[in-house]
Amino acid sequence: MKGIHGGDIYRNYVKIDFSVNVNPLGIPDAVEAALHEAVETCSRYPDISAEKLKKAVSGMLTVPKEDLLFGNGASELFMAIVHGIKPKKTVIPVPSFYGYEYATGVSDGEILYYVTKEENDFCLQEDFLSVLTEDVDILFLANPNNPTGNLMSREVLRNVLFHCRDNGIYVVLDECFIEFCGKECSMIHEVEIFPNLILVRAFTKIFSIPGVRLGYLICSNPLLLEKIGRQLPEWNVSSFAQAAGYECAMQTAFVRKTVTYVEKERQFLETGLKQAGYKVFQGKANFLLIYCERPLYDRLLEKGILIRDCENFRGLSKGFYRIAVKDRKENETLLKAIGEIKWN
Amino acid sequence: MKGIHGGDIYRNYVKIDFSVNVNPLGIPDAVEAALHEAVETCSRYPDISAEKLKKAVSGMLTVPKEDLLFGNGASELFMAIVHGIKPKKTVIPVPSFYGYEYATGVSDGEILYYVTKEENDFCLQEDFLSVLTEDVDILFLANPNNPTGNLMSREVLRNVLFHCRDNGIYVVLDECFIEFCGKECSMIHEVEIFPNLILVRAFTKIFSIPGVRLGYLICSNPLLLEKIGRQLPEWNVSSFAQAAGYECAMQTAFVRKTVTYVEKERQFLETGLKQAGYKVFQGKANFLLIYCERPLYDRLLEKGILIRDCENFRGLSKGFYRIAVKDRKENETLLKAIGEIKWN
Repeated sequence: MKGIHGGDIYRNYVKIDFSVNVNPLGIPDAVEAALHEAVETCSRYPDISAEKLKKAVSGMLTVPKEDLLFGNGASELFMAIVHGIKPKKTVIPVPSFYGYEYATGVSDGEILYYVTKEENDFCLQEDFLSVLTEDVDILFLANPNNPTGNLMSREVLRNVLFHCRDNGIYVVLDECFIEFCGKECSMIHEVEIFPNLILVRAFTKIFSIPGVRLGYLICSNPLLLEKIGRQLPEWNVSSFAQAAGYECAMQTAFVRKTVTYVEKERQFLETGLKQAGYKVFQGKANFLLIYCERPLYDRLLEKGILIRDCENFRGLSKGFYRIAVKDRKENETLLKAIGEIKWN
Repeated sequence: MKGIHGGDIYRNYVKIDFSVNVNPLGIPDAVEAALHEAVETCSRYPDISAEKLKKAVSGMLTVPKEDLLFGNGASELFMAIVHGIKPKKTVIPVPSFYGYEYATGVSDGEILYYVTKEENDFCLQEDFLSVLTEDVDILFLANPNNPTGNLMSREVLRNVLFHCRDNGIYVVLDECFIEFCGKECSMIHEVEIFPNLILVRAFTKIFSIPGVRLGYLICSNPLLLEKIGRQLPEWNVSSFAQAAGYECAMQTAFVRKTVTYVEKERQFLETGLKQAGYKVFQGKANFLLIYCERPLYDRLLEKGILIRDCENFRGLSKGFYRIAVKDRKENETLLKAIGEIKWN
């Protein structure tokens, strides 16, 4: 059974999960310890304003704490953004994360999908700005993109942001994977310049804690922040999320180590996959999009290895798969398993 | 600093917190153990459909699992209900939990507050049905009510439900404290009869896990359930909530023990408070509403004891306080502290 998302280990027999894109280095020890400690605190309500967490994250990012809003995962924030803005028209480049479409679905507005093409390596083209007309309310953009791993340059992004600002379009920039690319790739310090920019991030991927549920957004526009914040339920950030997030904010060395590690392993995997004859797209995140005509998903699942079949991504078709960058041993296991498949 | 809710231990110095209404017996050991075990699972995404939890809760309640929807606390469900139904007019009897007003605020609709009076012990009166006219979309009702502790009879509730069904009004019945009154007080098995009934519950109070965030609703109307469910973000129930909730569903003996314990302690506290000269309202939950003209909140806080000042409850005024029923030792400490206050 294939879900709309990766990682459905609950309805598949899986030994190694390459379908989910979390940090191959796992959870930092201090974060794990904080989660155990949080058990003792959970008979009290979590801090409704998450002050300690907010202060720590503000320090980690060097952004004002007034610009931060926390959510029960980025998925909650996407929905709160849509509820807060009530867009009549939303633009979503595809292929990309299904969550934007899902969140936008709670509004009555229309969605315009801008389809990026395989022959352009799924990059935005010059005509992109022409779809961002005045009647558009929200643009969702992921950087790096998922499942392609495409990383947009600061120049391209600034062009889009200026254009959107001039046309009254809010840009929801999803940086949930940006830490894997290095912090210099982030647009975080453009938030002050662009009141139409809503930057969304999560602790999920980089700290390997999808089960905890913790995302945040950064926005310098107080009226917009208030509108979005009003759509979040009270106590939406659990004691576990607050405790883990606080510890995560201290893990700058871990994040730096991750960037180096992931780059090395991504190259290892890329080389191996290319040698095995697969088409590998240029990705800068902790996963790779590949193309192959054979039923790779099914044959790997027979061996207990789950990869992400991307056929159900809008803008993709049969034959695209997303493979997470995991640790060396697991990456070797995958390549070996792929090599051993008898296609006959 | 007084918050809009109780339990703001983050911005007060507090030794004993009587402002929050969780089970005085604390967290069941098995639930605590499950939370520790969940730390090991949180590098995986939580089950997006929470199947194991759903099956366990369905078994505990003897309701079909198709009728259940889980939320990141009841607060998320209230908001999802409002987003799903988009009420033009909502009726909220007051005084009651602020969360209904907060959730309804995400809609453009108006709110009609039905004010119950002190001279009627804050009970709904005969004129209540007359405000429930055809133009009303949602009625929020808490049973037992918070902060009064009032428990409505099945007969009164059935009358309201029939009337609402005939007038096309959805009834959101908040049973977050019902387990403290005994399961025979619940309207859970009326859900099958009333397609307009949305019964909301939480694990928060009875299992003493507000930090975990886990609530659920029960509704037999599939179209309505789908509308509400569509307003919930994906993966809204964390791995911790799923693990804890599963264990909670096994704790039937603990719940039975709680009912007896709370009743005994509530009577103890009630007697003590009356002896100390306070007006105590008839409550059936794990808290008591009292009235006193003196600044009880401030004088107890000086002693490190936090109670809930109910002045900011709509429909109440200065002088109302809500006091949780805690364990014997703590209840004695409170009564002693109250006795020692020098009012002069």
